[in-house]
Amino acid sequence: VFIQHMLEYAGANYENAEYDEVADLKSCAIPDQPVPCMAPPILHDVPNDCTLSQMPAIVVYLAGELGLAAGDAYLNYQALKVILDCNDVLSDITNANGSRMWTHDHWQVFRSNRLPRWLEIFEETGRRHGLSASSGFLLGTESASHADIAVAALFGTMARCLPALEKDIQSNAPALYGLCHRIEQCEGIRAAIKRQEAETGSTYCGGQIEQSIRKMLALDEAPGQV
Amino acid sequence: VFIQHMLEYAGANYENAEYDEVADLKSCAIPDQPVPCMAPPILHDVPNDCTLSQMPAIVVYLAGELGLAAGDAYLNYQALKVILDCNDVLSDITNANGSRMWTHDHWQVFRSNRLPRWLEIFEETGRRHGLSASSGFLLGTESASHADIAVAALFGTMARCLPALEKDIQSNAPALYGLCHRIEQCEGIRAAIKRQEAETGSTYCGGQIEQSIRKMLALDEAPGQV
Repeated sequence: VFIQHMLEYAGANYENAEYDEVADLKSCAIPDQPVPCMAPPILHDVPNDCTLSQMPAIVVYLAGELGLAAGDAYLNYQALKVILDCNDVLSDITNANGSRMWTHDHWQVFRSNRLPRWLEIFEETGRRHGLSASSGFLLGTESASHADIAVAALFGTMARCLPALEKDIQSNAPALYGLCHRIEQCEGIRAAIKRQEAETGSTYCGGQIEQSIRKMLALDEAPGQV
Repeated sequence: VFIQHMLEYAGANYENAEYDEVADLKSCAIPDQPVPCMAPPILHDVPNDCTLSQMPAIVVYLAGELGLAAGDAYLNYQALKVILDCNDVLSDITNANGSRMWTHDHWQVFRSNRLPRWLEIFEETGRRHGLSASSGFLLGTESASHADIAVAALFGTMARCLPALEKDIQSNAPALYGLCHRIEQCEGIRAAIKRQEAETGSTYCGGQIEQSIRKMLALDEAPGQV
């Protein structure tokens, strides 16, 4: 979703690989891979004939190619830091990419402690660069950078697909919440969200770990009822 | 260790913060942090008066500052990918930074499957750029880049502190193994390793998760004896 949001925001021409093709790339012998890697995402830049794996590396690469970089070198290091933070939040909420299911005790620590602290980290980053609920960008750039698109991909998707968490985001990070909404107004992203909703409904990350997250959210609402 | 190896390799002047200072930075209110972040590492570049968190972002920043970048833009994206791979391996071997202890079943999957696959990923990356056991660098650069120093920090430290794994590295990735040795010959890194060994012996990552890794390695040697 990080990569797709960037491509959509920039109006780039792209195609998602078929599920089977991705599964084959992941499991085939390393020397047969276009880029030696453990897992997707993999980007194949067809015009430049190059491939790259690792989400944050792809995002930084595309920022350069699509004119979404922050401009100033130091801001680009900060943008990379923001993207790595986004990746960590995703890993947190999916319990290390679904490697184990949530228990309610652990989930409560995440929702009442780690998630608000993460939100405050992004909010404070924006605050230091003049971000408000109605205007500005995360790193104070004049137009959206890859850092803005990454946070919108993370928290915008979270708020839409797991609406119980929308109020957590809005109350802990109002400026961030406003930014996510503004980024999602971009035509390409709006169209992509509609397409995804038509195809998969409000699926978040899919699989057993999504079921586990939804079970925890239901427990938060009505303890003892699930 | 990734960051320290880079600083030592470049002969930079640096100081590690005291344990208490780092603990305070981690737990203090987000607005009071020099850079809003969840956890160390944090770099404070004193001459440039800037701070940055997230290991891969710090490594990329220092590569620029210390003249260790790969030179070519595309190689630098690949270097970032390599550093993110290194970070994933570290997260793998420490079971998501020690968030749970190893069971022998899970460890065996890691050692017999994921670790060799990771090693092959790095070995194949080097192979495509002309790396051999006795010469060359991971991305085919003329001198060491931050990617070389990161793999040496990861696998050199692993081989030294967990010697049972040295043969896994050497047999699955002979060119990578040679590269790690050559990087560790650098005077600054040799001195830092000696200092660390004097201070902490052959401690790997420390804490309960290190005990768990050592228990698994002992079980591998003598099943049923531990």
